[in-house]
Amino acid sequence: MENTNYTKFKNYMQSVADLKYASAVLQWDQETYMPVKGAAYRGRQITTLATLAHQQMTDPILEEMVTILLADHSLSEREMTNVSRTNEDIIRSKKLPSSFVKEQADVINICFHSWVKAREQNDFQIFEPHLQKLIALKRREAAYLGFEKHPYDALMNDYDKGLTTEIVDTVFEDLKPALRRLIEQANNSDIDDSLLRQHFDKDAQWQLGIDFLKEIHYDFEAGRQDISAHPFTTNFSAQDVRVTTRINENDFTSMLWSCIHEGGHALYEQGLPADAYGLPMGEYCSLSIHESQSRLWENCIGRSLAFWKKNYNKIQTAFPDQFLNLPLEDFYAMINKVAPSLVRTEADELTYHFHVIIRYEIEKTLIAGEAEAKDIPAMWSAAYKNYLGVEVPSDAMGCLQDIHWSHGSFGYFATYSIGSLYAAQLWSTIQNQYKDLEEEITKYGTESIWNWLKEHIYKYGRQFTSEELCRKATGEGLNSEYFIKYAEKKWGLVDG
Amino acid sequence: MENTNYTKFKNYMQSVADLKYASAVLQWDQETYMPVKGAAYRGRQITTLATLAHQQMTDPILEEMVTILLADHSLSEREMTNVSRTNEDIIRSKKLPSSFVKEQADVINICFHSWVKAREQNDFQIFEPHLQKLIALKRREAAYLGFEKHPYDALMNDYDKGLTTEIVDTVFEDLKPALRRLIEQANNSDIDDSLLRQHFDKDAQWQLGIDFLKEIHYDFEAGRQDISAHPFTTNFSAQDVRVTTRINENDFTSMLWSCIHEGGHALYEQGLPADAYGLPMGEYCSLSIHESQSRLWENCIGRSLAFWKKNYNKIQTAFPDQFLNLPLEDFYAMINKVAPSLVRTEADELTYHFHVIIRYEIEKTLIAGEAEAKDIPAMWSAAYKNYLGVEVPSDAMGCLQDIHWSHGSFGYFATYSIGSLYAAQLWSTIQNQYKDLEEEITKYGTESIWNWLKEHIYKYGRQFTSEELCRKATGEGLNSEYFIKYAEKKWGLVDG
Repeated sequence: MENTNYTKFKNYMQSVADLKYASAVLQWDQETYMPVKGAAYRGRQITTLATLAHQQMTDPILEEMVTILLADHSLSEREMTNVSRTNEDIIRSKKLPSSFVKEQADVINICFHSWVKAREQNDFQIFEPHLQKLIALKRREAAYLGFEKHPYDALMNDYDKGLTTEIVDTVFEDLKPALRRLIEQANNSDIDDSLLRQHFDKDAQWQLGIDFLKEIHYDFEAGRQDISAHPFTTNFSAQDVRVTTRINENDFTSMLWSCIHEGGHALYEQGLPADAYGLPMGEYCSLSIHESQSRLWENCIGRSLAFWKKNYNKIQTAFPDQFLNLPLEDFYAMINKVAPSLVRTEADELTYHFHVIIRYEIEKTLIAGEAEAKDIPAMWSAAYKNYLGVEVPSDAMGCLQDIHWSHGSFGYFATYSIGSLYAAQLWSTIQNQYKDLEEEITKYGTESIWNWLKEHIYKYGRQFTSEELCRKATGEGLNSEYFIKYAEKKWGLVDG
Repeated sequence: MENTNYTKFKNYMQSVADLKYASAVLQWDQETYMPVKGAAYRGRQITTLATLAHQQMTDPILEEMVTILLADHSLSEREMTNVSRTNEDIIRSKKLPSSFVKEQADVINICFHSWVKAREQNDFQIFEPHLQKLIALKRREAAYLGFEKHPYDALMNDYDKGLTTEIVDTVFEDLKPALRRLIEQANNSDIDDSLLRQHFDKDAQWQLGIDFLKEIHYDFEAGRQDISAHPFTTNFSAQDVRVTTRINENDFTSMLWSCIHEGGHALYEQGLPADAYGLPMGEYCSLSIHESQSRLWENCIGRSLAFWKKNYNKIQTAFPDQFLNLPLEDFYAMINKVAPSLVRTEADELTYHFHVIIRYEIEKTLIAGEAEAKDIPAMWSAAYKNYLGVEVPSDAMGCLQDIHWSHGSFGYFATYSIGSLYAAQLWSTIQNQYKDLEEEITKYGTESIWNWLKEHIYKYGRQFTSEELCRKATGEGLNSEYFIKYAEKKWGLVDG
């Protein structure tokens, strides 16, 4: 029988979760179905829920419950995980004075609107003073949170506990020369993929997206797909995990891989322990691991030849005019074209990392106080020239392209690349564990992979750090060699 | 400048409203888009929000604020309305012990599920013991709330302040012989309206529903329509008021008049003072007045010849096979066919009142302790035989048809008829105030009516009782003669 104190704690946490998930429903609605005038009061509704949830999470009552339970040796391992992760959250949130949290929320609000305007008008100057304020606040936040070596570590820690500049620097320094070599050797940027940019009927694309979500075992009884301006995944419990997509009638790739990417995120959320609703065991490990799940499905699987041997006919049936005469091999080459570009979200698997490295390096410099907001456009252009050999024609296509900074999400970008590296490492482990995996995927699909992920990733919730989970699942900590080997094999530089 | 105490009160009330509206979003989602497994945690999310909102409404802090403001003579009339209506709500909610509220919520939960099962299996016995418990609680509720003459008054008061059995009995006793006479004299139950029950394409019906909502000036920038099992209107502010409908491919009337009915409710909500968000001035007057708005649009306008002179071509264009050869006059006759039936929601304008009167009379007897749940089926059959001359073949088609009792909504039904009577009275006033209204509707549509309602109903929010508002708008209190005259004119018993 459950410990009474633990039951009290669980009930409390689950009530807080009700508020957080209610807020998530309101945000989902805001991005999908809300009529325009609904915005007038939706913002305050979301803020009220968030404020209440925050009050409850920082209420001394919770801290007291947690303190008692931390000393309670009768708890199970799962129970103790829930208590100790919650304790970490409390300690963290207590470090930030509520006046600071309020001040930051206000600056972010203004900053976001100035970013929207700046991007529309292609004018970084509009954004710059507000961003500068936010950067100053982020430096203060790092100081409040505390760090051992680099203030940026404090911010990254929020997205991936234990991730430090020391780790990321090492990984990225290893990765950079390998990426340069791989991009040069891939040498397929002259592939004509204009076939993918013909007209593709909206409804047929929509249906295809649904079919592919089903193909990768997304559970439509515990979720749904809708349209939004920017694709995202959200959840209101492990049994209601929703994805969104967008459809570009002149770009087939946009919808399809966004579906598979969000589907990868959603499989993770649907696979988290449903009975740990509102508790850390029911939460994802870290943003890096979350991203590893989306990238594993999007790239390792969703851009593999085996997957398309099974599924290319779906595309040919949906779009016979465009694909019936295109051999699978040509399609496969097109979807794996490597070419430097300006926009992160449209980048291929290899150049993508440079987009992330650029943002990471700029952020680190900003938080360290070695550069200011006004320096960003020049840093951005220099970095794109240096790493990708491209000229940045405008701030809109440059440092204004991402929403993250306007939201105050400093410390987030690295998780995109780190997640991708984890994906390759997990993928290598899966390939080693299943004999003839490619043949199996071609014949039967991806069920074994999904089952492996349930068993080695999903079920652990937030029990471990990314590094611990990776070690448990693959036998070693993060190692970028797996990604390099994966890429070498894919782009034909070594024998498969 | 706004009084500081009043600002504090307003902010408090608006935060409570955020919780209530958030809960409404979750319920809307539950009825429209939520995947099946989402139900597992949605119930508790809604309950948590409702509980918090209730705690805040009954918090002594609010009572204190209200007490101070009630004695503050610097408040404007609108401000004082907000304070005094809130005071009434507090007084009411304090009358019910929280243990009682909890007990009732639990019984309702069980009662609802037993009703679903009972209806599916056409077996009142499944529902009866739970309903009996709920009736006992409703009797206690009436005692807690207090009343002058009849316990049922206490319950009706929740839906329409000041409505009593004395008033309703008088109205219904006047109405009954008139209805009997009207139904007999209408004498058109032999009209063949099977044309309305052909196959009608779903998408074309959907589009037509949207067109008619636009026709009556529903603002799609401040709302949207979706599909749900049972049509309803909900709102998350006056700027986000949503309607739902259902589409029966074999019954054209179901979708169309449900759209106009819900549209009438929605126009009211969209017309309430938007800046009084979360305050009584931003809330509807009563359920009777709400229903008067839906019925005014559904029946007085939506089943009038003038309206169809303007709009019949929309239907003929959407469904040429079904309507191109049907003269408008025949269509008009079909949609105004009067025939006794078993199911309230499918009843015509005249027999509808008997459906309501039957429920009202049964409820009143139950709450007075003059009958018990077990007596309902027999009372129901006898009443349908007596008032409508029909035999009730089963409980599913009889006393199990409505959801209301299973939800504990005792005291609600009368507002359907009272609302319909208010509608006729308002309609008569509008007709007197606009010269050549029928010609105007035929030529230009319903904008004048909408404007009149904005000016005489919508803008007053919850400032007045139904009776006061009626008097202000029409020059006298509720008078069922207007409905009788309206019906006499419509069914050709007197010269128009």
